[in-house]
Amino acid sequence: MSNIPNEQTRWVLAERPVAEPTDATFRKETVPIPHSLADDEVLVRVDITSLEAAMRGWLTDFRSYRAPVQIGEVMRSAGVGEVVKGGKTLKVGDLVSGGFGWQEYAVVKESAVQKVDIPPGGSPIDEFGATGTNGLAAYFGITTVGQLKPGETLVVSGAAGATGSFAAAIGKIKGAGKVVGIAGGPDKVKFLKEEVGVDLAYDYKSADWKEKFIEEVGLVDVFFDNVGGEILDFVLSRIRRFARIVESGAISTYNTSEPYGIKNYPQLTKFSATLQGYIFLDYASEFPAAKKELAQWAAEGKLPRKFHIVDGVDALPKALGDIFSGANTGKTVVRVSKEALRFN
Amino acid sequence: MSNIPNEQTRWVLAERPVAEPTDATFRKETVPIPHSLADDEVLVRVDITSLEAAMRGWLTDFRSYRAPVQIGEVMRSAGVGEVVKGGKTLKVGDLVSGGFGWQEYAVVKESAVQKVDIPPGGSPIDEFGATGTNGLAAYFGITTVGQLKPGETLVVSGAAGATGSFAAAIGKIKGAGKVVGIAGGPDKVKFLKEEVGVDLAYDYKSADWKEKFIEEVGLVDVFFDNVGGEILDFVLSRIRRFARIVESGAISTYNTSEPYGIKNYPQLTKFSATLQGYIFLDYASEFPAAKKELAQWAAEGKLPRKFHIVDGVDALPKALGDIFSGANTGKTVVRVSKEALRFN
Repeated sequence: MSNIPNEQTRWVLAERPVAEPTDATFRKETVPIPHSLADDEVLVRVDITSLEAAMRGWLTDFRSYRAPVQIGEVMRSAGVGEVVKGGKTLKVGDLVSGGFGWQEYAVVKESAVQKVDIPPGGSPIDEFGATGTNGLAAYFGITTVGQLKPGETLVVSGAAGATGSFAAAIGKIKGAGKVVGIAGGPDKVKFLKEEVGVDLAYDYKSADWKEKFIEEVGLVDVFFDNVGGEILDFVLSRIRRFARIVESGAISTYNTSEPYGIKNYPQLTKFSATLQGYIFLDYASEFPAAKKELAQWAAEGKLPRKFHIVDGVDALPKALGDIFSGANTGKTVVRVSKEALRFN
Repeated sequence: MSNIPNEQTRWVLAERPVAEPTDATFRKETVPIPHSLADDEVLVRVDITSLEAAMRGWLTDFRSYRAPVQIGEVMRSAGVGEVVKGGKTLKVGDLVSGGFGWQEYAVVKESAVQKVDIPPGGSPIDEFGATGTNGLAAYFGITTVGQLKPGETLVVSGAAGATGSFAAAIGKIKGAGKVVGIAGGPDKVKFLKEEVGVDLAYDYKSADWKEKFIEEVGLVDVFFDNVGGEILDFVLSRIRRFARIVESGAISTYNTSEPYGIKNYPQLTKFSATLQGYIFLDYASEFPAAKKELAQWAAEGKLPRKFHIVDGVDALPKALGDIFSGANTGKTVVRVSKEALRFN
């Protein structure tokens, strides 16, 4: 273990945030890297850490599909890294993905990681691209949950984000009559039109976007929502009969103790419409087929490839904050190790 | 037409209410009863008029599944009455149902009414009972929309109302593990326990009902919601994974210009749950089979028979107000004609 340092940096949850995470939410610690492992464990150098809006939910002790991160526990996250101390089946140098958390080195059970094969010319970062969690979330949201049919009008909020941009692109692939993106700021609107290929895009920070939306979009069949709040309430007022609202997330509510309350939900009754929540793991049994299709679309250039790349273990809390402030376009990943700085 | 008076009383929409209907919302008019009819028309003496919470939606000019009642137009409603001037197929004395509105006599097309057969010992009021719109709304809400499975926990709000009491009873019939009613006031709680047969009932006007609910009910699989607002928001915090919320109505929102905003909808994502609106007419093709089953259950005494009966054409606006104030238990009907006073 000559190349493995004795100490590493990690981030633990120090206190639960009331609204948005602050400097006091996470605490940086310098701790020894274990030199002795159990038989079924390996030591992984974390190269890339994936960040996502859903992480905010893991910081709050409110009933959810999985337990929150505990105070004092290393912040939970998915990552890709290299095995630096091998086990029974994994060898030094193997590239693996798993729940490594916010740290430079992770001790994990061999059974809890997956070997990653990077195709020639590919990058480990692509583990968090089209065939990763965001691509899968978009895929099942548009198809199984949203039941998008050719010719229908699809609206996506948070459309320049990791999941949203895939959802919009998959909408085009599936033959939506009109794909409409909603995002914050002119740069994101430009990205949506030029790189994602939406038909219409609106900057929700502009004063008159709702008036323009009403005039240009007409009524909505499927709404793929990542934002919730005021945007969800507005789209509820624009649904067509039998509309499906796919509640992928509600990022507008994550960092506030006083979230915006939805008032237009009675429109669901008037228009026999559905507001359906889901998480991508609901469809785990269908991942192989979905990944195959997503990889094919990516290879054909039909899906956007856009990463918001931040460097260094120290930058993790700030990079998460970028997601909530809307500073990112596309998928946010942190290159944690020096060795990862060459990945693009 | 010797028994037909020359004039009648009717109620027209005078102005759109901002919040709850006021004395200025409807205007009483005395108008001539037409003595000449078109070939395809009949004259009906309105005996029973059905009132329902959804009527509030018809008073507001907000995009909906059907156009609002226009200013100056007779208030829309379903009713049962007797043909007093016949047409091609309908004879004087025939009992018919149709959209007669808030008036003593209605001129309607023969094709727009249905002949009503009252079984021996039955009452025309039963047109608005188990096999009427409320029974059908409850039936499709619990079965097709709610997909209630044996052993599951069903919660019904507005449970002492017309649709709610059928929904709770159908839940028992369909084998729910636990049927829970929520209603306003101790009399309704008593009705739910003694006449509808729920397992647990809560008075949402009591201070500690939520604490008791959390302790006694546990988590919720199906929520049949007639109320919306704060009760919906509370139940959203108590859903189990893959829960289905059946949005039959949201009476708490109908009479306010500042409705309560739902904050817990992100729980739908965390628990892969669905909030689905519908109207009973979505399932019109399945009415015959549903009515047969509902009639059978009613004959077996498995469904409640509870009417809130109000008398006289003058009382129509007040009777509608009773629904919003919660003064009714069961289905509200108005006996409009003197001839109807013998119906119970």
